[in-house]
Amino acid sequence: MNNAHVFPVRVYYEDTDAGGVVYYANYLKFAERARTEMLRGLDAESSRLIEDEDVVLAVHHCSVDYLKPARLDDMLEVHTRLTKVGGASLNLEQDVMRGSDDVARMKIRLVCMSLSGRSARIPAGLKTKFNNLLNSNEQV
Amino acid sequence: MNNAHVFPVRVYYEDTDAGGVVYYANYLKFAERARTEMLRGLDAESSRLIEDEDVVLAVHHCSVDYLKPARLDDMLEVHTRLTKVGGASLNLEQDVMRGSDDVARMKIRLVCMSLSGRSARIPAGLKTKFNNLLNSNEQV
Amino acid sequence: MNNAHVFPVRVYYEDTDAGGVVYYANYLKFAERARTEMLRGLDAESSRLIEDEDVVLAVHHCSVDYLKPARLDDMLEVHTRLTKVGGASLNLEQDVMRGSDDVARMKIRLVCMSLSGRSARIPAGLKTKFNNLLNSNEQV
Amino acid sequence: MNNAHVFPVRVYYEDTDAGGVVYYANYLKFAERARTEMLRGLDAESSRLIEDEDVVLAVHHCSVDYLKPARLDDMLEVHTRLTKVGGASLNLEQDVMRGSDDVARMKIRLVCMSLSGRSARIPAGLKTKFNNLLNSNEQV
Repeated sequence: MNNAHVFPVRVYYEDTDAGGVVYYANYLKFAERARTEMLRGLDAESSRLIEDEDVVLAVHHCSVDYLKPARLDDMLEVHTRLTKVGGASLNLEQDVMRGSDDVARMKIRLVCMSLSGRSARIPAGLKTKFNNLLNSNEQV
Repeated sequence: MNNAHVFPVRVYYEDTDAGGVVYYANYLKFAERARTEMLRGLDAESSRLIEDEDVVLAVHHCSVDYLKPARLDDMLEVHTRLTKVGGASLNLEQDVMRGSDDVARMKIRLVCMSLSGRSARIPAGLKTKFNNLLNSNEQV
Repeated sequence: MNNAHVFPVRVYYEDTDAGGVVYYANYLKFAERARTEMLRGLDAESSRLIEDEDVVLAVHHCSVDYLKPARLDDMLEVHTRLTKVGGASLNLEQDVMRGSDDVARMKIRLVCMSLSGRSARIPAGLKTKFNNLLNSNEQV
Repeated sequence: MNNAHVFPVRVYYEDTDAGGVVYYANYLKFAERARTEMLRGLDAESSRLIEDEDVVLAVHHCSVDYLKPARLDDMLEVHTRLTKVGGASLNLEQDVMRGSDDVARMKIRLVCMSLSGRSARIPAGLKTKFNNLLNSNEQV
């Protein structure tokens, strides 16, 4: 994944299950942490979007391919790349890596929603930032 | 524990960790489920307290003794007993049992808070219910 | 979903997030509880598969469409239906319902693995049970 | 807390509940991450203890005072200080801080256990490291 946002994740006991590996739902937590930090880098963290723009970005769809198990004390990285910016939605790909090994591959669709829960257009200033990020991803 | 409220909990993968046992923080989840159902039996579930009484019951203190490990597929019971009803607080004891084995023992102090986050007196109707429950616990 | 296995789930504080709704990763927990109980009904719970058959059923792929938010104290049902039985894998569809409302729709692919982590054929006795269940799902 | 080990924790959606604050059980996750990193600094991370020493450090008791709520996007610190080193146990105090505000105060007792689940003496090399750490905490 070229030009991806990279976010490190350490595996703690809380993340694992009795199979000795990271519990399958917890990759979605890792992915959300990484998206949050990517957005924070654009000055668009969750609490600021709610306060200043009256919107949230909610997950509308996700799919996960589990390729290799991750284990206690593993040092992982979530590589996040924006793949599409729509009027009211964003598509992203997120790979969880351990060194050069692909541990899990995710596709995520976020929708922009008003605080009352309706679909909403992405605010213009934010959309410009997303498009800039999308272009920088593609220019590789 | 005589006259305790009894709530069954099955152990799933989500509850366990790589040590093969229930992760220590998750007993607090089991305990909250049990408290919620005890309160629901008094017609005092969380969403009703918020809507009708403008209060929440928040955990102010908890202590846990971990006595035996619980494992995947175990069938547990949370035994909950009210031990004190104050003007703005409740004390409870909660035991997690597997058959006759004590798995974990908890002491919990809840405080009644307004939705703005201030300490608040327990509404009178609710306090009567708690006192009735307290008395029924003690009459054994 | 005709002939689906139905599993009830109550929404507690632990399941929700600051958006006031069930956190997106937690639907995967609900789904696993439901699958586990469906398997237990076939005498194929996780701990028995490990002990008697030396295999686990691991999630290889999942996808989730989030249709409506679920909230604190909601009473949900997970409807689980087996859709395909392969030599070493199972496909399922799982719908999270609140009354007649579809809250989330999941597709899950499980693979059978030996305890050393290699792909393994589904043990014959178990496969017969899965095929019987699949046929009962389709005969509607 | 003088000479404490300091570990930063960012609050994400996964950590919060419908009350808009960090869910009470999740402070135990933050505390375990911090203890793990303190131990890793002593070259005593969980997976190494299991492999090289055949022991685990399990939580035997914890108590938590919840002083102020933490919220989405908060940047917290866990301050961890060893307070006692026994033959088979460790006592720690862990404070969760937001700036100079005390958010939660924890007392934790860990016991050293063999992989078969029996109480075990802390291996000598490890105990020396703990005692050095304890002395450095007290020399302030």
